[in-house]
Amino acid sequence: MLIVKKFGGTSVADKERIMNVAKRCIKEYQAGHNLVVVLSAMGKQTDVLIDMAKDINPNPSKRELDMLLTTGEQTSVALMAMAMSYLGVPAVSLNAFQVAMHTTRSYGNARIKRIDIDRIRHELDQRKIVIITGFQGVNKYDDYTTLGRGGSDTTAVALAAALHADKCEIFTDVDGVYTADPRIVKNARKMKEITYDEMLDLATLGAGVLHNRSVELAKKYGVKLVVRSSMSEAEGTIVKEETKLERMLVSGVAADKNVTRISLIGLKNVPGIAFKVFDILAKANINVDMILQSIGRSETKDITFTIAQDSRDDAIKVLEEKKDLLGYSEISDNSKVAKVSIVGAGMMSNPGVAAKMFEALYNADININMISTSEIRVTVLIDVKDVEKAMNAVHDTFGLEE
Amino acid sequence: MLIVKKFGGTSVADKERIMNVAKRCIKEYQAGHNLVVVLSAMGKQTDVLIDMAKDINPNPSKRELDMLLTTGEQTSVALMAMAMSYLGVPAVSLNAFQVAMHTTRSYGNARIKRIDIDRIRHELDQRKIVIITGFQGVNKYDDYTTLGRGGSDTTAVALAAALHADKCEIFTDVDGVYTADPRIVKNARKMKEITYDEMLDLATLGAGVLHNRSVELAKKYGVKLVVRSSMSEAEGTIVKEETKLERMLVSGVAADKNVTRISLIGLKNVPGIAFKVFDILAKANINVDMILQSIGRSETKDITFTIAQDSRDDAIKVLEEKKDLLGYSEISDNSKVAKVSIVGAGMMSNPGVAAKMFEALYNADININMISTSEIRVTVLIDVKDVEKAMNAVHDTFGLEE
Repeated sequence: MLIVKKFGGTSVADKERIMNVAKRCIKEYQAGHNLVVVLSAMGKQTDVLIDMAKDINPNPSKRELDMLLTTGEQTSVALMAMAMSYLGVPAVSLNAFQVAMHTTRSYGNARIKRIDIDRIRHELDQRKIVIITGFQGVNKYDDYTTLGRGGSDTTAVALAAALHADKCEIFTDVDGVYTADPRIVKNARKMKEITYDEMLDLATLGAGVLHNRSVELAKKYGVKLVVRSSMSEAEGTIVKEETKLERMLVSGVAADKNVTRISLIGLKNVPGIAFKVFDILAKANINVDMILQSIGRSETKDITFTIAQDSRDDAIKVLEEKKDLLGYSEISDNSKVAKVSIVGAGMMSNPGVAAKMFEALYNADININMISTSEIRVTVLIDVKDVEKAMNAVHDTFGLEE
Repeated sequence: MLIVKKFGGTSVADKERIMNVAKRCIKEYQAGHNLVVVLSAMGKQTDVLIDMAKDINPNPSKRELDMLLTTGEQTSVALMAMAMSYLGVPAVSLNAFQVAMHTTRSYGNARIKRIDIDRIRHELDQRKIVIITGFQGVNKYDDYTTLGRGGSDTTAVALAAALHADKCEIFTDVDGVYTADPRIVKNARKMKEITYDEMLDLATLGAGVLHNRSVELAKKYGVKLVVRSSMSEAEGTIVKEETKLERMLVSGVAADKNVTRISLIGLKNVPGIAFKVFDILAKANINVDMILQSIGRSETKDITFTIAQDSRDDAIKVLEEKKDLLGYSEISDNSKVAKVSIVGAGMMSNPGVAAKMFEALYNADININMISTSEIRVTVLIDVKDVEKAMNAVHDTFGLEE
């Protein structure tokens, strides 16, 4: 079997953990499997590097930031190769140039376009464990790019797809996908299986277990994903096309605190104004999530939307630059908000699910700011201070603990 | 003018120093010059990385060690580009893959073969300051290599040669080349000019100011080298083909403590035995410096030679592996030795110079272990405890302070 395994920063944070990961991989290698191991930067190294950069330049160019950040994974993979060869198994580390991992050009948030697998195949043919830098790629200018937070999951899935691997195991500090974050909801339950679509909504909504693009990619190429703990041998959760389990109405609850709500007050109430706002944001590479537009009863209207917190400064900047074009009177923003979502493939044919969620929140005395829904998901924006209460209320209401 | 500037680890050890280097470069950029800036890893980062590696694997593969170490310069160049753009000047960092800096395949000690200058020219044409990782290259397998300790000097000179730069300035923590290490010999004097050959001998012999291969390369391609202080605006020392100054008999004294002496005792006294010893060492990529062979009056003989201290373990290992082939009775080694050398183009026509040096050492009560000479150099191996005394005695004897 060819297996792609991805270990996050926590799993390679120090010498002992690197040795543990090495031993775990070697056990499977010695059972005859071929392994490709994708690693993130050690522990909080990416944050340390960002702090170093911002200390020198509060607004560093994204191109140079990627150049800096990619040293993090390169350090991990080199040390892991040393650990494995210390334990007597041939291993080789490869960075994005060596792979080569071709991405779109956008620094800080690139997408993988194509992977040359010749070098990897060549190393695997020599029965080496191949250790590859997650999170990073190379664009057409021969510059490093990074795939955004959590991008190492995407690297692993993309490699599994390109290599036609038998499975792609994502090792994290939890032992699978839960019906809710077990640190917040005490009686959250681990799921044995989940569909790509459910996982996608959970990932997008901040379940924090998997990077959403990695799930999209797994779905697109039918990569069998397994979410497992790097600390235990527990079986984890399998993510695949269809699960054999009977569909639950709601399969999980997720929260995401990385949200900023921005309001444009007093926009001209003319056709195309919303388009202009979101076009400006799209061109600045800012993803807009929930959108609320006031019903334009007068000459002006308001548009409120949410974005990731780290896009806040960029968003405010481009919107202020285009103030004349948009003609609004005021921008306001609030980062003390959070999204809470329920996800479940069973929801599609059950129109009462959203109402049941709102009722649970109402009973818990939680105010809803914004609402957005998809076929298998309901999301509400609430005050960040209410997140814990909301998740427990919803989890209980849908009986997810059993 | 196109100027290549190289700054060592001390010059970029922290935020303040990075900012200082950035400001210094920008001043020249704003005077209309084009700049290529070569950087080493910050402060002691290379040593930190080596320690990390050895903590995981006491004998890491050189290929993986290079993969690890190259993160050091990549960090420096990215931060420097951020510093320059913070100060309002366009800058771009490039690593060995991006340049591309082609080297021989030998990890840890590669030599530069060829530099593609297209990318650098392209960036310079856009009036950017181009910041390039020193010390590192890429071999034909698309793997990182490093050029050995101090290799960033060589990177800078090779770039200056490839780009036909007007000069190559090497910034260090001293303000030029001295007649002896000013920390050891109090009345050492800074030289205004020195020839490539003299500098080469000083570099090889551990003057510590310039990497020897950088001087070889500068000589080969006629690159005008300037050794300057990164802390002051002092003029420094110019290294070039011929100096206008009258030739001194001896131009400098240098010491090198990075020496291990190894003796093979009781070798079979047969033809070709010395060849075998040095062939084994050459194949293990170990540079042998001084050699002393006992006159074979009996059935056995001894060979003593010196190598760099960091090659000691490798040398002992390969010699022990080949014990049967070589048939010696014993290996002994001593790292408490040092080389002291005098260098001077004027020496060639003055046979009495070596004798004068030996007399000075004799008067200072210093025992000489081994001697080696070239046309413009005399080197002695002595106890490391005598280095300071020896340098001062020799410096005084040849009147270098004036």
